Amino acid sequence: MRDFSQGVEHLSINTATVKEQLALPAIIDACARRGIRAIDPWRDQVQAAGLQATARQLKDAGIGLSGYCRGGFFTASDAAGRRAALDDNRAAIDEAKTLSAPCLVLVVGALPGALQGSPTSKDISLARAHVYDGIAATLDYARGVGMPLAIEPLHPMQAADRACINTLEQALDMCDALDAGRTGMLGVALDVYHVWWDPKLASQIARAGADRLLAFHVCDWLIPTRDLLNDRGMMGDGIIDLKRLRGWVEAAGYTGFAEVEIFSNRWWSLPADETLDTCVARYQSTV
Amino acid sequence: MRDFSQGVEHLSINTATVKEQLALPAIIDACARRGIRAIDPWRDQVQAAGLQATARQLKDAGIGLSGYCRGGFFTASDAAGRRAALDDNRAAIDEAKTLSAPCLVLVVGALPGALQGSPTSKDISLARAHVYDGIAATLDYARGVGMPLAIEPLHPMQAADRACINTLEQALDMCDALDAGRTGMLGVALDVYHVWWDPKLASQIARAGADRLLAFHVCDWLIPTRDLLNDRGMMGDGIIDLKRLRGWVEAAGYTGFAEVEIFSNRWWSLPADETLDTCVARYQSTV
Repeated sequence: MRDFSQGVEHLSINTATVKEQLALPAIIDACARRGIRAIDPWRDQVQAAGLQATARQLKDAGIGLSGYCRGGFFTASDAAGRRAALDDNRAAIDEAKTLSAPCLVLVVGALPGALQGSPTSKDISLARAHVYDGIAATLDYARGVGMPLAIEPLHPMQAADRACINTLEQALDMCDALDAGRTGMLGVALDVYHVWWDPKLASQIARAGADRLLAFHVCDWLIPTRDLLNDRGMMGDGIIDLKRLRGWVEAAGYTGFAEVEIFSNRWWSLPADETLDTCVARYQSTV
Repeated sequence: MRDFSQGVEHLSINTATVKEQLALPAIIDACARRGIRAIDPWRDQVQAAGLQATARQLKDAGIGLSGYCRGGFFTASDAAGRRAALDDNRAAIDEAKTLSAPCLVLVVGALPGALQGSPTSKDISLARAHVYDGIAATLDYARGVGMPLAIEPLHPMQAADRACINTLEQALDMCDALDAGRTGMLGVALDVYHVWWDPKLASQIARAGADRLLAFHVCDWLIPTRDLLNDRGMMGDGIIDLKRLRGWVEAAGYTGFAEVEIFSNRWWSLPADETLDTCVARYQSTV
């Protein structure tokens, strides 16, 4: 297993981690000051800062991407909505390419209307079928551009409103169905927060292998957890056995970044420097 | 599929549903007034009302049990704690027998100390091994008494602090390992709240079959869900496709009760009659 205790060579910061404190240009500056070599920015932040300006700033700072957040949300109440989602995913792929991202992370969507508080269907099987079709169509475009797609299985507590792919096994089944040749163009973004509980996690990580493990996100599961979305913990503050999990991922051949992604009302309420310094310290001590 | 639209023949009330409004004797009376034929009481309620008094009241009211809540919590930081858990489970089995319960529901426990807010271990694999050993030992006793054990897989969002068995597949694997002969003494309590999201749910319900399906609990998943424990929805207020799910369970051979179990600050804040009347109405219209 790689030694993370010195430096920040394999650390990436998902920019959502300090999104409430800083705009993207300031996040990039703050990462550059710490010698951090990679970030994973969100589309709305990039749009606010400007795509070309962001690409230039990253190049000047010597910072690359560990992924681009995010595509997906393939489900909709009608065919027009699903077509619009495909258009939006193509745009996300083009942006990811401009920023030289290694992959586009997919939060695939779930019951139509649920995220807006008004689900129009209870049929999660149908949502999953629409997700399958959406990824298939998007993968065609992604192959042409050369932008790998990383399906992110989300925690089952987000199955209704955010993503109806909820286990690594399910994500890998979809990868095998759509990319049997393991071309490197379709894989998974593995976030410990979503998958730590899974009794099949070790075996499915081994199944995934380096071909499918396109991103590795870290944070922690707090006890108690007070909010289903925005109460993630800093690494070390919860109960996820992070080193064991990273060991499985590296044993499967993963050599990429450990990307810190923390949605947390608490860490958003602190000065960005404190949050980022803590990310660095815990990356070194705990991940 | 059975017709639930008339009467309450297959309805059971888990007494936690109105635990904040009424003590157990009053819950039994309220159910009897509605013609409800079964309840699933909790140990603390039975203890408060008296075991023998409860058995008498149930007999006089013509009300049976659909299960007894609960055994389990097999994990602990040390061997003495785990031995104490086994003693407690034997006591629960004896109580269940006195009340003529068809099964004892097991919430198996998770990381030691986590429920008290101070987890002493991050090793969920070890917790699962201790659960396995605990169920094995308890099953020996249960066989002697003739009290079936129903493992309840809990939602993955409760994997850290309440139960480290989190999918039906995992529960059934354990049943097969401990009761390969499908003797009827070990099975599952299937609560839609915990399992609705599972992409393997239909196939695992079919695998379970009537031998393993010892209880069927209903409520609903709300959008948004504001609390990980006490924000369950009344049937019909959320996004679980209840009739489809009951269809799978009945196709697998289940002929028992549909037990309403709702942990909800909202439904606890209303008059018990209103909560119970709504349970009956939704059982008829939505389950």
